[in-house]
Amino acid sequence: MRATTIHAPRDIRVSDVPDPTIGAPTDAVVKVVAGCICGSDLWSYRGENDIDAGSTIGHECVGVVEAVGSEVTSFAPGDFVIVPFDHCDNTCAHCRAGMQAACENLGFTVSGQAEYALVTQAEGSLVKTDGTPDDAMIPSLLTLADVMATGWHAAVSAGVREGGTAVVVGDGAVGLCGVLAASVMGAETVIAMSRHEPRQAIARQFGATHIVAERGDEGAEAVRELTRGVGGDAVLECVGNDAAMKQAFAVARPGATVGFVGVPHGVELPIRRMFQKNIGLAGGMAPVRQYLPELLKLVQDGTIDPGLVFDADLPLAEVAEGYRRMDEREAIKVLIRP
Amino acid sequence: MRATTIHAPRDIRVSDVPDPTIGAPTDAVVKVVAGCICGSDLWSYRGENDIDAGSTIGHECVGVVEAVGSEVTSFAPGDFVIVPFDHCDNTCAHCRAGMQAACENLGFTVSGQAEYALVTQAEGSLVKTDGTPDDAMIPSLLTLADVMATGWHAAVSAGVREGGTAVVVGDGAVGLCGVLAASVMGAETVIAMSRHEPRQAIARQFGATHIVAERGDEGAEAVRELTRGVGGDAVLECVGNDAAMKQAFAVARPGATVGFVGVPHGVELPIRRMFQKNIGLAGGMAPVRQYLPELLKLVQDGTIDPGLVFDADLPLAEVAEGYRRMDEREAIKVLIRP
Repeated sequence: MRATTIHAPRDIRVSDVPDPTIGAPTDAVVKVVAGCICGSDLWSYRGENDIDAGSTIGHECVGVVEAVGSEVTSFAPGDFVIVPFDHCDNTCAHCRAGMQAACENLGFTVSGQAEYALVTQAEGSLVKTDGTPDDAMIPSLLTLADVMATGWHAAVSAGVREGGTAVVVGDGAVGLCGVLAASVMGAETVIAMSRHEPRQAIARQFGATHIVAERGDEGAEAVRELTRGVGGDAVLECVGNDAAMKQAFAVARPGATVGFVGVPHGVELPIRRMFQKNIGLAGGMAPVRQYLPELLKLVQDGTIDPGLVFDADLPLAEVAEGYRRMDEREAIKVLIRP
Repeated sequence: MRATTIHAPRDIRVSDVPDPTIGAPTDAVVKVVAGCICGSDLWSYRGENDIDAGSTIGHECVGVVEAVGSEVTSFAPGDFVIVPFDHCDNTCAHCRAGMQAACENLGFTVSGQAEYALVTQAEGSLVKTDGTPDDAMIPSLLTLADVMATGWHAAVSAGVREGGTAVVVGDGAVGLCGVLAASVMGAETVIAMSRHEPRQAIARQFGATHIVAERGDEGAEAVRELTRGVGGDAVLECVGNDAAMKQAFAVARPGATVGFVGVPHGVELPIRRMFQKNIGLAGGMAPVRQYLPELLKLVQDGTIDPGLVFDADLPLAEVAEGYRRMDEREAIKVLIRP
């Protein structure tokens, strides 16, 4: 099959690789209808993560079931499915506790930007749509494989509550989905910290009541002013670097929780401030499968349209251009069609 | 008055210092009936915190109101009161949210091991007992000024729930109070990590169902075995150093929260594990006033007897001996009578 591969920093190619096949009775193979590029793919692209030269890349996709293993009974070829980036059996103790991201049989999508993707633990991981969805709904469905579920996880982890104040640090696709999540969960004030006009516009569409363009001390001061000197009741850290984490703790009120979902890189937690102000940290890799049925319902009934985070739609052949645009912040998130 | 003062590492004296006086209308002066030595006092004693030579030390006490400022209307000379180590107005936005440890008018007891202590924000901070308590109840009442409230805060922060599993890291007085708190809150399994037989005995009296004497990987393995391979639902970190924090994260199940209340010293948080396993961190300085009415009721009705953590009772003149015993772990916690 044709698949996106990475060979070195900034060296993204489309290569011929072996088709995935059913290797275990719990596997399924999905023919990818749409995949996309994740902010976390850029860590490899920029050489900040180790690269296994020639390996496939991409962990987000939706598509049609092509083949299933003998233990996969709820899905059959032809079903349109959302593929959580983190595969889980949905039956182990961690899954039963809602923590599918720590499943004892955890697996990952490794060729989401390709013609086919292998799903380990297909029975526990996949979720079907009601029939074959309209093309217009594909982008929003695709966000449920990772980015929307991850933004939702940030909001859940931060403890967003009806009537409260949520502050979102990071205006990437995850941050924007965090804004949408906080808004759907009923936060009365949703403050998006963003300096980029097109992202601010989406944040407003997603329910942000205020935009704070300042960063650092000025950003913290702006949030304080918007929250009557108190700080945010719930703070969503949707980047993963040290500056964003420090910003998150700076805008959190005493007793609040920072919900973090960005893969941490070079983060040093401000433990003294955490202690003195009782500001907690919760979150991590999103248990996508936990949220998927609820989020699918919200997409299918039109309550949310998280697909708006895609501002570019490229054929697989142009995937390298997609990486370039995201790396240079020309695009928020790029959809890839095999 | 006679007061405990610190002059250099391991140099604790009883000195004559000026009596505290009412300096602000929100002040009260309390004649100390009993004070005690806190594990956190040992940071200074060991030279790990800066020392202001000749300053008074001690932040835990109970006693009788001696004088009040003009704005203190709920207390009068003669009232027996618990003095939260962290004073608060109990009216600001943070206090109203239950986070009195971050009060806008935060103050601290600074001469708890002395004849008199000044309480700033007396109206918001103090809690009266029902009449003058029996001598036998003094130790338990004294724990409410800090150590029992702090153990309680660890349990609240860790999210201890009825029927769940709680693991307590640290067998100092705070850890033992954490065991008691987890037990009172209904945890079905309470695992105390302790290597010291006398402390194990108190842990059992306080409701520990299991003792794990191993540490490090072996300790984590022992907890895993006791929790059917899953880990603790709630973990109380009651020490504040790096080894204890790492232990706490090692025994927590995915999705759990580590409740931390030990003043952090040299702690490096395992952020990768936190992310990958979704293990949160919450807690900090205890909002003593928040818990005080509830805990006082539990002491007065005999439900809890946290005073058992005191295994030494010394006159003020021997306070230096008390520090020595706690430093050398000959005593768990030392009560000081002026």
